[in-house]
Amino acid sequence: MAKFMDVHLGMVGITNDQLKEAHEADLAIQSEEGVVFERAWADPAAGVIYCLSEAPNEEAVRRIHERAGHPADEIHPVPLEV
Amino acid sequence: MAKFMDVHLGMVGITNDQLKEAHEADLAIQSEEGVVFERAWADPAAGVIYCLSEAPNEEAVRRIHERAGHPADEIHPVPLEV
Repeated sequence: MAKFMDVHLGMVGITNDQLKEAHEADLAIQSEEGVVFERAWADPAAGVIYCLSEAPNEEAVRRIHERAGHPADEIHPVPLEV
Repeated sequence: MAKFMDVHLGMVGITNDQLKEAHEADLAIQSEEGVVFERAWADPAAGVIYCLSEAPNEEAVRRIHERAGHPADEIHPVPLEV
């Protein structure tokens, strides 16, 4: 398992309910790809969401987000952490 | 206090020791601006660092990172979190 930070753009005006709903859509299917979505943070003014996960690989993260209806704009492996 | 995610670019090849050293430089002076740096994640291949903090405002985060020698390229307030 590796850690990933993915980024979603163009989400200007996202609400807390919408963020929660999107996160729950990921959680509902994440086990099918062995992904564990940990946390997500949103800047509604800039429309950016940062999403932290553990996954077997980048493609697994990409597939879950796509299937949940919110494809990621960037997915970064983040092997270093403090 | 509010939560912020800041981004540092151009850090290709950063090592775990360098990330830790940079984080400790922030921690050493963060109280002077009332900032609490919580965690940071790095993608050494793409040279991107994501840094999560709590702070009174964006300028406080900006000043600590600048004084610690690693100005942030982006600082996003992230009032929404799951």
